[in-house]
Amino acid sequence: MIPENHPRYHSLLSREKIVDAYKSGILADAGMIAHGRGEAFDYLLGEKTTVTARKSIEAAAAALLLAKNPVISVNGNTTALVSGEIVELASVLGAKIEINLFYKTEERVKAILKVLNEAGAEDVLGTESKELKHIDGINHPRGDVSSEGIYKADVILVPLEDGDRTEALVKSGKLVIALDLNPLSRTARTASITIVDNITRSIQCLIENVLELKDRDREELKKIVGNFNNVNNLKDSLKVMLNSINEFEK
Amino acid sequence: MIPENHPRYHSLLSREKIVDAYKSGILADAGMIAHGRGEAFDYLLGEKTTVTARKSIEAAAAALLLAKNPVISVNGNTTALVSGEIVELASVLGAKIEINLFYKTEERVKAILKVLNEAGAEDVLGTESKELKHIDGINHPRGDVSSEGIYKADVILVPLEDGDRTEALVKSGKLVIALDLNPLSRTARTASITIVDNITRSIQCLIENVLELKDRDREELKKIVGNFNNVNNLKDSLKVMLNSINEFEK
Repeated sequence: MIPENHPRYHSLLSREKIVDAYKSGILADAGMIAHGRGEAFDYLLGEKTTVTARKSIEAAAAALLLAKNPVISVNGNTTALVSGEIVELASVLGAKIEINLFYKTEERVKAILKVLNEAGAEDVLGTESKELKHIDGINHPRGDVSSEGIYKADVILVPLEDGDRTEALVKSGKLVIALDLNPLSRTARTASITIVDNITRSIQCLIENVLELKDRDREELKKIVGNFNNVNNLKDSLKVMLNSINEFEK
Repeated sequence: MIPENHPRYHSLLSREKIVDAYKSGILADAGMIAHGRGEAFDYLLGEKTTVTARKSIEAAAAALLLAKNPVISVNGNTTALVSGEIVELASVLGAKIEINLFYKTEERVKAILKVLNEAGAEDVLGTESKELKHIDGINHPRGDVSSEGIYKADVILVPLEDGDRTEALVKSGKLVIALDLNPLSRTARTASITIVDNITRSIQCLIENVLELKDRDREELKKIVGNFNNVNNLKDSLKVMLNSINEFEK
């Protein structure tokens, strides 16, 4: 048990969840290592949701509310850390949840589905091989997506995604919202809206933004999305990291 | 199998070694995640041994050659990545190898010992509970060290070490050489000489430096150590990381 007053309580709690998820078959080997990479970038962010991240979260909320067919793509790490929040977000948006894995096995899909069901998800896509269609430009089973989900989605939230897939989804004309702690990654640079923040913090903030914006009129939401510039936002996140390095240099 | 011409061949090879080591019981859960953190900082370093790192490696080689009782402290990650090189370095220095683990279990000590023996290590310390003494200032089993090894060492190489232990070792009057990819970590800031580099690259460079300096006279070696300033060297490593972030900003 990690004491709640430990200065790095949240980080250690996430680490514990990731290790448990790995042991229960939800995470691929690479998922544990990817979590560590995220920890390092979060450390440079000061382990808090920045003002810059909040702007990207607001734009993401507006884009999701404008969507005809919003889909939340989930993998092992997302499920391990925030399954309850994913179900809540899908419910407030009327969005679909689709399991899409880089290292896909039937066992992992089943294990993830079980956790999502326990968290209250009723209808999860991406679990049956026969319903899948292939997206152009992804030379990988990860390109196989549900015909009722990502295939016909206009806006997709992809937490913790890889660069190839983000690129293919953007090329296929979809608005892609990525959650990535590394502002230099190809995913971060390719997505339409990139939230540079720890998913355990930003998902709650995203839900709050959706609830707050959901009665606004469409023109106002369009303006929020239109005013958002992803490259500038990434640069601002990099500046936060630069500052935390410079802090030490003094 | 990872193709040798893959642009991230070395990084993927290390990741494979870490996963295999985890599965064979050499690594603790936290070891996989720690590897990921290292990957992120190495990414910011450009995944190469910098001129700055080479200066710290030269100072480390000189300090190890000046030592009366040099000891190399090894853990799961070090064994997984560079067991052969550790044995080679110990042999050219006449240094002892001691197993010291943060998450210590008899099984892990045995698994690590087996790999070190297979790599050619004959006499490995830290494996028998009865020979251990406790170092002041470490409220953790990790403070239990071999009376013939770390306890009486004057210079210790601690690759991938935690901050508490580094601090206690420095306080007990030893010269501590750390290998740490995060120049902001407490380990990096506390150690006498910190090598900010990936161990898979720097260990070979360290062996080369030892071989090159080993016939120099002691005064010359003392001068190399005396001229080395750890805080300035860390700042230079941070500048490399700042530059790689700035590169993208342009």
